[in-house]
Amino acid sequence: MLLEDIMEANWKFTHEIRPEVLDHHPQKHLAIVTCMDTRLVEILEPALGIHRGEAIEIKNAGNFVGGKHCDVIRSLVGAVYMLGVREVAVIGHSSCGMAKVDFQRLRDSMLAAGVAKQDLDELNLENWIGSFPDEKDNVLHTVQIIRNSRYLPKDMPVHGFMIDIETEELTVVVNGYQQIKR
Amino acid sequence: MLLEDIMEANWKFTHEIRPEVLDHHPQKHLAIVTCMDTRLVEILEPALGIHRGEAIEIKNAGNFVGGKHCDVIRSLVGAVYMLGVREVAVIGHSSCGMAKVDFQRLRDSMLAAGVAKQDLDELNLENWIGSFPDEKDNVLHTVQIIRNSRYLPKDMPVHGFMIDIETEELTVVVNGYQQIKR
Repeated sequence: MLLEDIMEANWKFTHEIRPEVLDHHPQKHLAIVTCMDTRLVEILEPALGIHRGEAIEIKNAGNFVGGKHCDVIRSLVGAVYMLGVREVAVIGHSSCGMAKVDFQRLRDSMLAAGVAKQDLDELNLENWIGSFPDEKDNVLHTVQIIRNSRYLPKDMPVHGFMIDIETEELTVVVNGYQQIKR
Repeated sequence: MLLEDIMEANWKFTHEIRPEVLDHHPQKHLAIVTCMDTRLVEILEPALGIHRGEAIEIKNAGNFVGGKHCDVIRSLVGAVYMLGVREVAVIGHSSCGMAKVDFQRLRDSMLAAGVAKQDLDELNLENWIGSFPDEKDNVLHTVQIIRNSRYLPKDMPVHGFMIDIETEELTVVVNGYQQIKR
């Protein structure tokens, strides 16, 4: 059972490792907004040269922002005004599962798992799920929503990156410093 | 400049490491829902015995769910029906910044950073920011919202854990297997 495996791994970890006690303010004043994809787990931080205590991490399906009051903006408000974040890095990746979602297949899977047709009909699945046609355009969109938020500082750099999910190579999509200068 | 530091670290990483090419379906069929806190970065996975390719990770301010259509539920729908997730672990932590938020201080910080008073008044900050009185109760609440979601399978175990932010010791708050049996 997975629960037992996790507890056993944790027992071993806590009996072998004594972590450094750190403050909750990220020392590089950085917030990372990225995808929940399992291929970014454990590897994103070394691929960016970021360590524990240096940045906060916001992760959801497709590093997607659902509008001006969405959860990413809420989390960033907490990060900026309570934790001292001064810079944001939005990181999309190639081959994202949220790009070009097959709605019919998703709908069929939900119905097969027992979701009621009425609940599904009420959901407006196509809008709600947050699919996008292109990963790089989605990074641009996410950067723009964060930059234009009325609740975040106007002079905060918001960078956009794409990461190659196979090689972990980063490409700059938006240089947030240049955006600020305009 | 942080952007340049990140690009330099990435150049080094990609010239030294050739990551294993993995599928985007997490091999342990697990979704982790946890907090954006910087003290969980890099250390949560080894503290759970979870590796790249095994679990997806959803992270926001306070491992918080803002209702039945919130971003965490959206991400879990993607994880379950498109990535084969069959089990969820909600992981709260001690000393969470979203517990007992000082609203007056947050409001003052936002105004000082240039947020317009009118925009702030329209926001209903106290409700929106997702503060909670107690970290463990918040894990129970998050587990309950996920378990009761009409869009997720009824027989999916949703576990709740607390992790000690200093020692990384895990405690089971909700054993999702037992909940399913009831």
